[in-house]
Amino acid sequence: MSDEFSRIAKYFAPLAGEEGRGLTDDAAVLAPPPGRELVLTVDQMLEDVHFLPGDDPALIARKLLRRNLSDLAAMGAVPLGYLLTIALPDGVGEDWLAGFSQGLARDQKIFNIKLFGGDSSSSRGKISLSATLIGHVAPGAALSRNGARAGDGIWVSGTIGDAALGLQARLGRLADPSGFLTARSLLPEPRVGLALAGVVSAAIDVSDGLVQDLGHMCKGAGLSAVIRAGLVPVSAAAAAASGEAALETRLTGGDDYELLLAVPPGQGEALKAACGDLPVTKIGMFQAGAGVHVLNDAGAMMQFTRPGWRHF
Amino acid sequence: MSDEFSRIAKYFAPLAGEEGRGLTDDAAVLAPPPGRELVLTVDQMLEDVHFLPGDDPALIARKLLRRNLSDLAAMGAVPLGYLLTIALPDGVGEDWLAGFSQGLARDQKIFNIKLFGGDSSSSRGKISLSATLIGHVAPGAALSRNGARAGDGIWVSGTIGDAALGLQARLGRLADPSGFLTARSLLPEPRVGLALAGVVSAAIDVSDGLVQDLGHMCKGAGLSAVIRAGLVPVSAAAAAASGEAALETRLTGGDDYELLLAVPPGQGEALKAACGDLPVTKIGMFQAGAGVHVLNDAGAMMQFTRPGWRHF
Repeated sequence: MSDEFSRIAKYFAPLAGEEGRGLTDDAAVLAPPPGRELVLTVDQMLEDVHFLPGDDPALIARKLLRRNLSDLAAMGAVPLGYLLTIALPDGVGEDWLAGFSQGLARDQKIFNIKLFGGDSSSSRGKISLSATLIGHVAPGAALSRNGARAGDGIWVSGTIGDAALGLQARLGRLADPSGFLTARSLLPEPRVGLALAGVVSAAIDVSDGLVQDLGHMCKGAGLSAVIRAGLVPVSAAAAAASGEAALETRLTGGDDYELLLAVPPGQGEALKAACGDLPVTKIGMFQAGAGVHVLNDAGAMMQFTRPGWRHF
Repeated sequence: MSDEFSRIAKYFAPLAGEEGRGLTDDAAVLAPPPGRELVLTVDQMLEDVHFLPGDDPALIARKLLRRNLSDLAAMGAVPLGYLLTIALPDGVGEDWLAGFSQGLARDQKIFNIKLFGGDSSSSRGKISLSATLIGHVAPGAALSRNGARAGDGIWVSGTIGDAALGLQARLGRLADPSGFLTARSLLPEPRVGLALAGVVSAAIDVSDGLVQDLGHMCKGAGLSAVIRAGLVPVSAAAAAASGEAALETRLTGGDDYELLLAVPPGQGEALKAACGDLPVTKIGMFQAGAGVHVLNDAGAMMQFTRPGWRHF
């Protein structure tokens, strides 16, 4: 394995924006966009917690960025760039680093972000990664997960539960003939770039599972949520993996990175316009009270063995 | 062990500035100081690489912040706040978290910084930590490690080599009757708050070892450096741990977090004025050529078995 400085020069310096100063300085220098507020978030990805040892390093890199980009999306922020930490045990070689940095490069282009800086270290344990993403919003326009009001509709983007079923498929517990569910688990689509300020009253990304993340919104707003399981949008591949267990996995499984939104009455059309080609679906309503209530097609309250997902 | 959300609420939410939104949102929102540029840096601390399993968690927390604060100091930046990642294996309990968060709280007060956000996870390996520090500078005033010019003096703050000897003491290989060296290893003093812009032409913090970090400055500027070992400032405790091996450890050992500065001729007094009570010492000069040349008291070139320090 090459030393830390050679590795940085070879794999990471080509990814750096001018803010990163060629990754040869002690820190990055960023001139914030004039008159904008900055939005900052950090997420880790750890071997055997967030990814499996044999996973493709390019997909690990891209998911690391996308999980954080999804947090920026939930705040209504425009992504700018990121800082990276990477800690690799001795057994991880140049091939892994080459794939990882190629994954970063690919998503940097797609999402128009640059590497600002980072820290590389050896690890005496497993692979440990983190990214700190920086974005910007108009002053006061950052969305919050805590702003829902009684009477707001509960909407979600895309389809829910694909990634959790995809994880089951990757573990050999579920058939995924099209590979769609697996792809949704390995490479989520962060919903960045939507003009949601003034349209929604609260937003969160579905990372821990629909029920649990909806619970966060309820707690933050001092409200309850009632949703109908039958309204939660399902992909064709997920529908094929049918059954009550699959339904619970879909509603409580993590890693969707869709947006869960509180939308005031009368704003549904504005929401659809803001989301363009991305489908959005109303699945329920916020009301007084506490907790998340999921109704089945008969209108009865469903019970789950666990509210959310705590990784592998 | 309590769950992730209870832990965040109990140990970390009290540390959050208003930018952190009580740590209940997807990201932090920061209004940058008007007209200032931001300086961003990230460093990891990993069990068995940067700290030992039995180390005091409060000191680990404080060193994590201070290593990053030292990077801000080397850029001439004023610290604002930080984001944190923390990954703990199952065996690490509430006592550790309580100590760790108390350490953060203590240094937040000392350095006037706040927690902006973070990510907490379980780990299937060892303890893994990182902090992303955010500071600010006047536009164009950020220092660089790459700006040295031929004829600039090479200056250092404080004393050099204490932390490397302190690590030897912690490993039982060296006597440290006063505990001074051990303390310098566990709790470095980042040299933040010095008005160095316009006084120095380049700056770096000594984290990898004096010789190696001086090598970074040389490479960045396309110059060589000549220093005299006998001029490198030594603490009384380090002087007591005498001998040629201790000298090499002092000059090549890491973790000092003193500043290494390129100072144009005639700026020595201005440097001393900017540093106030912090002693600064001229140890050599940048000149044409390449590489770092360390001369002993007889004026002969010293050879080292390793140029720098790559952690434990």
